[in-house]
Formats: sequence, structure tokens, C-alpha cells
Amino acid sequence: MSFYDPPPHLVSGAVARALEEDLGALGDLTGALVPDTARLEGQIVARAEGVLAGRACASEVFGHVDPAIAVEWARGDGVDLTPGDRIASVAGPARSVLTAERTALNFLSHLSGVATITRRFVDAARGRTQIRDTRKTTPGLRSLEKAAVRAGGGVNHRASLSDGILIKDNHLALVSVSDAVKAARTLWPGRPVEVECDSLTTVEEAVAAGAELVLLDNMTPDDVRTCVERVAGRATIEVSGGVTLDTVGDYAATGVDFISVGAITHSAPILDIALDAVIR
Amino acid sequence: MSFYDPPPHLVSGAVARALEEDLGALGDLTGALVPDTARLEGQIVARAEGVLAGRACASEVFGHVDPAIAVEWARGDGVDLTPGDRIASVAGPARSVLTAERTALNFLSHLSGVATITRRFVDAARGRTQIRDTRKTTPGLRSLEKAAVRAGGGVNHRASLSDGILIKDNHLALVSVSDAVKAARTLWPGRPVEVECDSLTTVEEAVAAGAELVLLDNMTPDDVRTCVERVAGRATIEVSGGVTLDTVGDYAATGVDFISVGAITHSAPILDIALDAVIR
Amino acid sequence: MSFYDPPPHLVSGAVARALEEDLGALGDLTGALVPDTARLEGQIVARAEGVLAGRACASEVFGHVDPAIAVEWARGDGVDLTPGDRIASVAGPARSVLTAERTALNFLSHLSGVATITRRFVDAARGRTQIRDTRKTTPGLRSLEKAAVRAGGGVNHRASLSDGILIKDNHLALVSVSDAVKAARTLWPGRPVEVECDSLTTVEEAVAAGAELVLLDNMTPDDVRTCVERVAGRATIEVSGGVTLDTVGDYAATGVDFISVGAITHSAPILDIALDAVIR
Amino acid sequence: MSFYDPPPHLVSGAVARALEEDLGALGDLTGALVPDTARLEGQIVARAEGVLAGRACASEVFGHVDPAIAVEWARGDGVDLTPGDRIASVAGPARSVLTAERTALNFLSHLSGVATITRRFVDAARGRTQIRDTRKTTPGLRSLEKAAVRAGGGVNHRASLSDGILIKDNHLALVSVSDAVKAARTLWPGRPVEVECDSLTTVEEAVAAGAELVLLDNMTPDDVRTCVERVAGRATIEVSGGVTLDTVGDYAATGVDFISVGAITHSAPILDIALDAVIR
Amino acid sequence: MSFYDPPPHLVSGAVARALEEDLGALGDLTGALVPDTARLEGQIVARAEGVLAGRACASEVFGHVDPAIAVEWARGDGVDLTPGDRIASVAGPARSVLTAERTALNFLSHLSGVATITRRFVDAARGRTQIRDTRKTTPGLRSLEKAAVRAGGGVNHRASLSDGILIKDNHLALVSVSDAVKAARTLWPGRPVEVECDSLTTVEEAVAAGAELVLLDNMTPDDVRTCVERVAGRATIEVSGGVTLDTVGDYAATGVDFISVGAITHSAPILDIALDAVIR
Amino acid sequence: MSFYDPPPHLVSGAVARALEEDLGALGDLTGALVPDTARLEGQIVARAEGVLAGRACASEVFGHVDPAIAVEWARGDGVDLTPGDRIASVAGPARSVLTAERTALNFLSHLSGVATITRRFVDAARGRTQIRDTRKTTPGLRSLEKAAVRAGGGVNHRASLSDGILIKDNHLALVSVSDAVKAARTLWPGRPVEVECDSLTTVEEAVAAGAELVLLDNMTPDDVRTCVERVAGRATIEVSGGVTLDTVGDYAATGVDFISVGAITHSAPILDIALDAVIR
Repeated sequence: MSFYDPPPHLVSGAVARALEEDLGALGDLTGALVPDTARLEGQIVARAEGVLAGRACASEVFGHVDPAIAVEWARGDGVDLTPGDRIASVAGPARSVLTAERTALNFLSHLSGVATITRRFVDAARGRTQIRDTRKTTPGLRSLEKAAVRAGGGVNHRASLSDGILIKDNHLALVSVSDAVKAARTLWPGRPVEVECDSLTTVEEAVAAGAELVLLDNMTPDDVRTCVERVAGRATIEVSGGVTLDTVGDYAATGVDFISVGAITHSAPILDIALDAVIR
Repeated sequence: MSFYDPPPHLVSGAVARALEEDLGALGDLTGALVPDTARLEGQIVARAEGVLAGRACASEVFGHVDPAIAVEWARGDGVDLTPGDRIASVAGPARSVLTAERTALNFLSHLSGVATITRRFVDAARGRTQIRDTRKTTPGLRSLEKAAVRAGGGVNHRASLSDGILIKDNHLALVSVSDAVKAARTLWPGRPVEVECDSLTTVEEAVAAGAELVLLDNMTPDDVRTCVERVAGRATIEVSGGVTLDTVGDYAATGVDFISVGAITHSAPILDIALDAVIR
Repeated sequence: MSFYDPPPHLVSGAVARALEEDLGALGDLTGALVPDTARLEGQIVARAEGVLAGRACASEVFGHVDPAIAVEWARGDGVDLTPGDRIASVAGPARSVLTAERTALNFLSHLSGVATITRRFVDAARGRTQIRDTRKTTPGLRSLEKAAVRAGGGVNHRASLSDGILIKDNHLALVSVSDAVKAARTLWPGRPVEVECDSLTTVEEAVAAGAELVLLDNMTPDDVRTCVERVAGRATIEVSGGVTLDTVGDYAATGVDFISVGAITHSAPILDIALDAVIR
Repeated sequence: MSFYDPPPHLVSGAVARALEEDLGALGDLTGALVPDTARLEGQIVARAEGVLAGRACASEVFGHVDPAIAVEWARGDGVDLTPGDRIASVAGPARSVLTAERTALNFLSHLSGVATITRRFVDAARGRTQIRDTRKTTPGLRSLEKAAVRAGGGVNHRASLSDGILIKDNHLALVSVSDAVKAARTLWPGRPVEVECDSLTTVEEAVAAGAELVLLDNMTPDDVRTCVERVAGRATIEVSGGVTLDTVGDYAATGVDFISVGAITHSAPILDIALDAVIR
Repeated sequence: MSFYDPPPHLVSGAVARALEEDLGALGDLTGALVPDTARLEGQIVARAEGVLAGRACASEVFGHVDPAIAVEWARGDGVDLTPGDRIASVAGPARSVLTAERTALNFLSHLSGVATITRRFVDAARGRTQIRDTRKTTPGLRSLEKAAVRAGGGVNHRASLSDGILIKDNHLALVSVSDAVKAARTLWPGRPVEVECDSLTTVEEAVAAGAELVLLDNMTPDDVRTCVERVAGRATIEVSGGVTLDTVGDYAATGVDFISVGAITHSAPILDIALDAVIR
Repeated sequence: MSFYDPPPHLVSGAVARALEEDLGALGDLTGALVPDTARLEGQIVARAEGVLAGRACASEVFGHVDPAIAVEWARGDGVDLTPGDRIASVAGPARSVLTAERTALNFLSHLSGVATITRRFVDAARGRTQIRDTRKTTPGLRSLEKAAVRAGGGVNHRASLSDGILIKDNHLALVSVSDAVKAARTLWPGRPVEVECDSLTTVEEAVAAGAELVLLDNMTPDDVRTCVERVAGRATIEVSGGVTLDTVGDYAATGVDFISVGAITHSAPILDIALDAVIR
């Protein structure tokens, strides 16, 4: 299992569901129109510039539809693609390849889309800070999208509500920062505590309460810089809220540790990837 | 069940999976930090202009997390939203509302994003043609996204390989148009046959073979117009391939019946929707 | 839970699968054509003579599709039906009732078909022997069909390979009767042992080995009578193998304890049951 | 994947459920009584005349129970069988073969039963019309039964409520023919519309409204002939409602395009198929 | 399938769930820290004296995580272990072995714990009686624990409420012994009936009513002996209720057929089993 | 949702599986012997001293079997019990209560067993250190057991391999401490790193590398004390490895932050809890 792969059971579950969706009750009506014995060779190629992700899913699709389909990968997750790049070669019974094609491409193009937009943010941050994902993922695909974020050079924030403490504004409407942090120490000791802050005052409270991380939400780069100076290393600092490719460089220059961007998972356009039949 | 709703079992399945993703093994660590007895009221509001979709999913999320959460909907799927519009009011045990919030919003914002971009294409086509979706959907969410397309005013193409015959270029590398159509009549009688065409010659072949629909792939509006004239009503005509908001009007003006757009499902950015706590 | 009901989780599992089959990805296309607010009242009626079974399944279908559908049952499982008998009244949102109709009827008519043919065998046996089912059931519906057998007055043989020891001809090609019975005493003590016998000699071996039951396979009524006399109460005797409504009376007259009939589950024609809309 | 095969995930799902039913919690009690190292060879043979279907399911059963079981098929789905015909040879660890036997046979005999009765209707129609299945299938087995219908020479009507528009009497109690057809054009454009008709008047309405298919329900052959003449090619015509092997020839002679028969799926008796151990 | 193995689908289901638990959404964070290409060899060794069980589960774990892991078993289920005994050798990609390790050991150590405590009771009974399990098993693991009981030399009581009739005190608060036995004969003929008895009077009633087994609950060895004498072979006798390793010998000496012990499944401490890396 | 509750979907999944196990294919054979209309009232009572856990599971069992069963809880999770304490009152249709009884008790007694042994360790540590669980849980029940640990006053270590970085001896055979910690900072930034140490040397390495936690494995209390002094607050310190109720006090006295104990989940004997029918 590569660092870029999601856990295998989540790959196989997502693939099984996608194929159920696409095969329906009668299977591939159109595939039945081509000769039973025909074979098809094809190449999976990039039609646009980007970063590859989703290889484990596409492999699973082909294998699930027909173990007789051979897939030879030319590139791995995390690799840069330019238009025309061959990603993989596929060969097998024509009906099987035709049946699997769209589902395999749907995974590759969606997850490569996530990796590609992540890479753009990472590049724009110029190594000064790390780009983190959020819980704003496509329902049912979180783990796959978080793996694609890693393929794009981003890093993963918590995977679920169970995987990290993040005290947000709606919590703070009900409990004070210091009480919340204190409760976290008692109930979930040994886990870092992050507090969402919309002002320097809250930042000070959070650091004073011992939070390991502060999340600066919807602040300007200047405000962020002020917070960074005031915190002075006492906590890890993360920025979030509407950061775009245009603004990420400014935020990165403030010296924060992380910038988290919901758009890399919730609004990533696909990367155009196609299967071209090889005509001999 | 409204025309805009997906089948209930697909709603509940998708919601259950999304909550499994988000609750993890220990549940909401942070939620446990607020007082057990606290209540929370909130409003789901639009932060951007668009079209609502995903109400059935969001309702299911709240009900699944805690039947004690009351949701009162102010707007339904298919309705136009402007920034600030209240979509729904939510009230219940604070921990439960906080736990459900993100998953409910992920469904609403993704599916409303699909409805919104669909509506833009529909508007740009000015009623001259219908906008259809494709099988280029997000894996695991096809049925939900197709319902969102309906909410946006689009219409559904086939839901699966089992739900329609569409003879594409990769099929035609293996079988002739007339043989394929003939086989379709024998194997799957009573179902319309659609043939993807990249030239006027193929269009002629398809119509001669009796295809009910021709899909003009990657043609210019001028070429499309020529095809429309030549077909002269003998088949329904659909256009696909890289149609954008900028070009859809030109294609619509050619008189085709359908324009199908993969981007409305595979590359729709979310519609920004949030849950604001009501402070009294 | 009535004696005629299958375990609830098997009812809900079978119903969920059947509705998934019938709703597909887009739901009920035709139902969407009737007015959203229309209501429909109907009566589930018998069109032929028989015995009712499957009420729990049909209830679950209606409730699963829409809790707003009200079902009032006029008759219960195991009850005799004559053509025209009202089985239940159904009322609710028209779209929901129309969507649920076919699936509910498929359960009722299949399971009532099983109950009906069972009752015919029971009646033909005139109380001299009991009619048992077999493992020759429709894949995926065993538990439901076994409940329908009970509704028809039959009794259940083992529900699975785990639910009873039955040493058959193919086993006896590999192990002797006495060794098999001995092994059963060691490995699975406290469970009755049944031996399939195709001759009086095997019957003698089985009884000598201490088998609690002997299964006389494909014997004539006369041969069965001879076996009954020879066994003389030392074991319970069951007959199987191609027993029909024409011959079951003769077999029953031999004094055997059980006659098992695969056809009551594997070849039962449906009982004709319909949903008639009530026109007011 | 052959034209006669159901989608693989539906085969594996149905087989997994059937084996769960038959293995129960302790597995095959009786199988444990034969020597651990014994091997068993057997032949799957037809005991009656008919048409084979269900090969994919039976293969899956043996492979699921034990990959060490070798199955060599002598005949494929859709092939005619006469009593005594060898369908397949099976060899492997005795316990595994014995455990798998009944479940494999239950699939083969049920699905071949469907194919066989379908073939009888097809033969009786003498090629003048096609025999179609309905949604009156055994709950949980629809896709498998529809594949068996194809193996018997029949053709598939819609697979689900999502897979075709069929406006029936209960719909017409709530909406007029022309309004229903009009709504179908708006909501589900590009899909053929079928209208169930119980009189010539409704037929005229349906054709006038532009329906692509009319379904003549419960009419006599003479009435059907009148309708065929009146429609005169303006729509495809289907007959349904209690058509039997005795009457199907008369209906076929009227010149209709399809005759749909619920009994080929809901009331098909099994085809008798057995596994005979090979004694050497 | 060995006599000591649970049905395969229950093994694979339990293993899949356990791996889902342990892999979470991001997979093995720590495994990603070791070199991608590293290999690891290890030995599964016993750290304490006991009986092995759970081999099928551990094999499934390794194969599920990575088919490239080779496992060579040195000992089988049911075999005695002394501290230091090598149970199996494992070799494969280091990350995969490390990921699978804990889940494989959790199955082996829990199920071997059940087998070990069972063996202790069996040994303490000195062959005078058989040790049976109960339905007091760990939720979700019943079938696996019952297989482990067999590995320890115990025998299985009923696997479920569906797998045997046992009339207990709470039933007898609602129905008389004779009525209950009579109902069992009618509703579930051919199945042995067991009656829980807390006094000699009830024993007499049960035997008089024709019960095949009596379960003496919470009696002293002396009382048990009295019952055995009074029953005098007319029924099989089982003892249950707080029997410990200290008292089982006394109960066994009374001549009862079975002693059932809940503690062998509900309170078995694990057998200490570890995976030691082989350093070369 | 209380802090002591597992996520609801894990409760319902575990309960559904346990009931499937116990209901089998035919349901509760014995329950069918008591009158259909009988009602049963009972009390769930403690038979031994301990701590309650598992209430959510038991509630779910009763509700799943029959919503007509009323359960009134007298005590909540985390509460001390003494023999005879009434935990809950149960009333409903007799057959339903009898069917649900064992499964409900299996959950309560197992999970209360975990809470009880946890509480003993917590008490023995006298508040000087916290007791943590491990990944050595019963397969399939991890989340439920971790909730029970919280009910007993313990705290949760990582829930899965995805939920925390713990570099163990088998990892250190393949990578150095400093390289592993460095890799963790790069790949999984923002997450604390724990290193298992079997010597003071490794402790020094781990602290020097910046590990937030060190896990002292299989050391004597004296060695632990030495490590605590040497670390001097630079890292959180955890002890593990064979700590028992006899030794936990000595370890706690060394000043470590956590003691983790596998036995509280993998070897907890049940707490004896019963359902007594109320005789009026």
C-alpha cells in the first residue's frame, strides 16, 4: 500500500457501488452489440495538465468487471501529467473494457482533479506553509479524496469528528474556550486541541488555555501576521476561510503552519482523462 | 416523493455512508465538550446565488443523527436562492445539531452546486433545447446528482449502461453502425437506439439504419446545423462534447433537441450554504 | 411475531432488496406523471382460491415506500381465500401507493402460492401424516417460503445444512451408515440423525445404527408400507421423492410420519392477487 | 459476459445470500461426517427436457464454497436439454462439493425452469411475435430471471419502474391519457411512452397523444386484431393479461409486436436437474 | 473446510469488519513511516500454554490486507501449545505485515482463549461427560466462538433460537410443561425438546411430557445425582448454572450427559500470542 | 448522545448482527410455544458488583425486536452496581421480550464487564495516572468496548491505525527513531508522535527526536521511575505491558501520565446481569 492509496476496503467499497450504479439490472445493453470474441486495446491518456490520482480505484474497476482485463500502468499517483501523456495501457475482451471504461475514468478524472487543484495551491504557497484539506468532502468519497490530496502534495487534517478536536464558533456559543479545552484534557487526554478563532482576543484565550493549534478563520493576511507574531511559537497556526489561488501566497508569506482549503475537495473540477482505442 | 427526489433507499444509503465517514469510531469528540443539556437553534442560509437541491438528503442526515432535531424547510428543491436566503431552520440538542451540521451541509452544497450550474446552462439555452446530464457523475452519487439536475431544470439521459443504448466510437471500431442497430433491434427490442456520430457520413448511416437518436460529438455549431438540416426530423438530435456556458447558446440555436453536458455533474463547484447559530 | 412470520430482519432485508430492484436509479418514472397531491384508495383482493401468506412482507413494502400509506388487513396469514375476498384496504398518496403496488403483490402472490399448494398437499394427506418442506427453496427466500409453508399447514424440515443431520446417498458413497451415525454422535451430540434410504437394507442399517429418522427416497407406497412395518416404531419415517397431489394420499395411508415435498417451494405457481383502485 | 448473463455483482450477491441461508451458523453438519480427505466427482445432469440457464450462478456457488472445486461445463445457457444430458462435470474435495450441491442446483433448476417455460411460449408464437417478461418476478431475483428469459428466447420489458414509462389503469384513474403523455414528454424526454389500454377508445387516445407503444390488456384475439388494424403501424403493440400456452398462438397470429407473460417468471416450475456422483 | 472452521462467509465478514475498525479512514499512519520496499519476516508464537483456534480468521486477515503476504502454518486448530511454540511463519511487504499484525493476533488470541478454557473444562470432566457451550457468546462472534469450542474439545449446543427448543423458567411462567411440549410436537415436529428444570418435580413433569432432554439449572451435584437416578435413561440430562473448573469434576461424576458452561465463551481470557520479527 | 455512548450506527450495526445470529432462519422456536397474547414484565438486575455499560445497545435490541417493548432505565452507563440493583424494567409482549432477552443481556454483561475491570484499574491507580485502553479489543466490538472503557473511568488511546502514530519495536527494526519521527512530521503533520521504548536509550532518542509521547514497554516500576526523571516533562509518558491489578498501583506511583492495559478489553470477564420475570 502506497502512501497515496486509501485503505483497500474503502477502494473496493466505492468501486462496487459505482459499478452497481452503472451496470444496473440488465448490464451493458450496448456492449452486447459488439462481437462476443472481439478484443480491445486502449490507452488511458491525459487530455490536460495536472496530477494523477485514483490508480488503485481504476485498477479495482477493471479487475472487478473482468479479471481478464490487463492494465499496465505507466504513471503512478502523485506524478505530473501533460496533455497526451499515456497513463496506462488496457487490453482485454472488448465488451469488458467498454463496460468498465466510464467508471474507471470517473474515478481517475475526479480524484486527479482533486490532486491537481491541491498541487496548484501547494505550488502557490511556495513551500512556506502546508496545504491541508477539510471535512468539506464529497459525501461517500472522503477517504479517497484525502488520499488524492496527499497525491497532490497536500496534507490531511482530521478525517472525521472522531479524529481530532476542533472547537469552532458554534461550540463557543455554548461553552467558553477555557472550559472547552479543560474538558478536552479530561475526556480525551493525549490528543491535541485546536480552537477556531475569529479575533486576536480568542487567539490569546486559546493559547492561554493551552490549545496546541489555533485556526484563524476568515482573517486578512495582515491580521494573520499579527496573530503569528503574538502567538510566537506557543501554538501551531492554521488559516482557513475562502483562501483562493490568488490569495494563498499572501497567507503563506505570513508564516502560518497550515492553510486549509475546502475547495480542493468540494469544488475541484475533473482532470480530463480519456480512454483511446488503439487502432492497429 | 417529489419529482426532484432520488429514490429513498439511495438517499438513506448515501447518508448512512456519509455519517459513518464523519462519526468514525469514537463519534464527535468536540461535541462532547459542550454541555449535555444545551440546545442549539440555527438557520441554514445561502451565501451565494443559485438553485437549491438535496433537501431529502439533509433531512435524512438530521433525522439519522437524532430524531429530536426539528427541521423546518423554508424552500424546496428547484427554488432560486439569493445570498442570505433562509433555506431552513434547525433546532435541537446542541451536540446532535453540531454533529450533523457538516454532513448535512456537504450534501446541500454539493447537490445545490449541481442544480445551480445546470440552471445556468438551461438559462443560456433559452428554452430552445433541453440540457441533459451524462454518465460522467461522481462515483456513488449518480442518482442524487441526476435528481439535482432535474431540480436545476435539466433532464436525465440514461441512468446506467442498462438504461439505454448508446453506440459510441469505441463500439464502432468493432461493429458497423447498421449491424449494431440491427443487433439492438433483436436483442433489446422496444428500446430507442442512439448512435454517436463524429461526421455527417455517420449521421446518414445512423439515420438510414433507423436509429431514433443521433449524438453529435465534438462538432462546431455550423456542422451541427448542417446535420440538423440533413436529418430533417427523421431522428432526435443531441449534441455533446465540451459545450460550455459560452457556447451553449450557439448550439441551442441550431435547433437540436438535447445538449448533454458532463460538467454539470463532474465539475460543479459547490453552492456556498452555511448553518448560522441563532443567538438570542 | 406470529408463528406464521419469518424473523423480522429477513422480512426487511428481502423487502429492501425487492424495492431496490424495482425503484432503480431514477425511481418511478410513471408515478411522477400523476398529480403530486392525488390520493389513492385500493383493495387488495384475491382473484383465485387459496391460502394467504406474506402479510408481514407486504406491510413492510408499503411502510418502506411511504409511512403515510395506511394498510388495514382484513385477513391474516394461513386464512382461506375465495375469489373476490378482500385481503386488505390500502390508502395513501397516489404516487406512493402506485410505486409500492407491484412489489407488495409480488410478495403476497408468491408466498400465498406456496401456502396454497402446501394446503392442497396437507388436505390430500387427510391428517394421516405431516407435509414437510425441503431445502429446495427459491434462492434468497428460504425463510419466507418456510413461513409460508407453515401458513399452509405444513411443517418445516431443517432450515439449513447447519440445522439438522441428513445423511444422503452422496454421503453414503464415501462413508458407511454406521460410521456416519457414529461420527454424528461424537461431533454433534444431542442432535437427531436422519438417514436417506433407498432400500429396506439401508433402512435396517440406519435403524440398527440408531438413527432417529429414516428418509425413504423414491419408493413406491407398497415399499414404504413394508418399511413402516419393519421399522415398527423404532424410528420416525419420512417419505420423499416426486410425491404429487395424486399420490400423496397413498403415501399418507402407509402410516409414515412425514412426507416432504420440494415442489411446494420450488414449483409453486403464484396465487392471483390484485390491487383494485376504489372509484368513488 | 455473455448476453445471457446477469451483471456479475447481482450474481455474486444472490449467491452469497443463498449460501448464507444454507450454511447457517455451524456450516454443513453432515459434510463433517465424511472423511476430510475424500474427493468427489459428479455430473450435473438434466432429468427433464428444457433449456439451460443459471450457469454463471452455479459457477459462482462452487467457486465461493471452495476454489478447489473444478467445474467443466458441457453446455451453455440457452441450449436445449433432453433427459440424461450432461450439463457439467464437477470434481473436488468431497465435503465442499456436498456443501455446494443443493445451492448450485437450486439456481440452475429455478432459472432453467424460467428459460424452459419461456421457450415454450416462444415456440408457440412461431416467430410471429416476441415474448416479453414483466415486473412480476420473484422478489430479489429479477435480474437473474430476466437473463433466464433471454436464454429462453424471450426479450426483456422494463427492468424497473425507473426503466420505462408504462401508464396503467390505476394511473389513468388519476390523470388523462393526453395529460400523462404530455407530462412524460416534459419530465422524461427521449424515452418511449407506453399506455395500457382496455378498449379501442383508449387505444385511439393513446395513439393520438403520441404514445410509442400501446399495451392491450385482457382483450380477446379478435379485439386485438381490430386494434392492430386501427393502429396501422402508428405505434408498437403489446398484448398482456392471462395469455397461456393454449392461447398464445392465436394472439401471435393477430400481428402484435409483443406478448408479455407474467407466468414465465412468477409461476415457472423448476427444470429437474441433479448432481450424480460418479462411481468408479 | 475442517470441522474446526466456521462457515467461510462468517470468517470473511468478521475479518472485514475488524479490518475496517483498525484501518480507519486514512489507513496505517505509522506503517507509512517505514521504507516502501522493506520486507518483514516474523513468527507467530505462543507466549502461554493453551489450545490453538482461529487459524482461518488469521489467514483471512493476512490475505485480505495483502495477498503478497505468505503465511505458513506450523500448527492447526485444536492443537496444544506450550510457551515458545511457533504457530506460523509470516513473510511479506513490511507495511502490509505490520498493518495486519494486530487484527490477526486479536482473532487468534481471543479464539485460542476460548479453546483453551474449553479444554480445561473438558480435561476436568475426565471424559465422563461432554462440555457444551451456550448462547452466552460475544455479540457478533457466536459462530467463531462455537468453532473454537469444538477446537477445545467441547461440543455445540444450539447456535440460535432457531436451532433448538429449550423451554426455560421464563417460558414456564406463561405455559405449563406439558402444554409447551405438546405445542412443540405440533409446531416443530421432528425436533428434540429440552426443558429447563430447577426441581425434581419439574424433571418428572418434563420426562412425563416426553421431553428428550432436561436441563438441570443451578442444582448441587447431589441433587443432580438424584435426578439422574430418577430419570434412569428416559431423557438426556444436561447441567448448567455457574459450573466452574473447581466443581465440574463433581458434576461430571454424577453421570450427566452434558455440562454447559457460559464462561467458556463469555469470560474467556485471551491466550497470549505474539508476532516476533525475525532478525537475520 | 452521551459521552459514554458509541456512535449510533455502530450500535445499530452490532445489534443487527447479534440478532441475526440469534434469530436464525426460523426465529424463536420456543417463543412460539407461549400464548400469542401473553405479556411479560421483567427486571434487569445486577447479580454482582460492578459498573454498568451497554445501555444504548440493550435499548436498541429491545426496540429492534419489537417497538412495543417498553424499557425504563433505572441506571445509566458509568454507574456503580451492587448485587440486586435494578438496572431497568422491561414490559411487553411475552414472545418479544423472551426473544430479545439473551441478546440484550449479552451486550450488557460483556460491556459492563469491560467497564467493571476498567474501574478496578482506575481505582487501583488512585487518581495518580489515567488508565488507557489499547487496540487489543474483541474483533468487531472495538468502538463499543472503548465506550465501555470510558464508562469505567478509563480514557481512550487511538481507535485505529488511522487515529494515531505509534512507532513500535517492529517498526524500529526497519527504520531509526529519528527517521521515523521525521517522516511522521512530513507525512502527517499536526499529529502527536508516540514511540515505544524498551530502554532508556530509546527513550532518549525518542525525546531528542521530538516525540510527544513515549511508551515504556515491559519495564519494572523502578526503570519507569528512572525514565520519568530523565524525561523530566519533555514528553508525555505511558506505560504498558502486562500491568495487573496487583502492580498498577506501583506503576501509577512513578508519576507516569498513562498506563495502558490490554486486559480491560481482551480479557474482561462478564458482569453477571439477568432478566428476572416479575410474578404478580
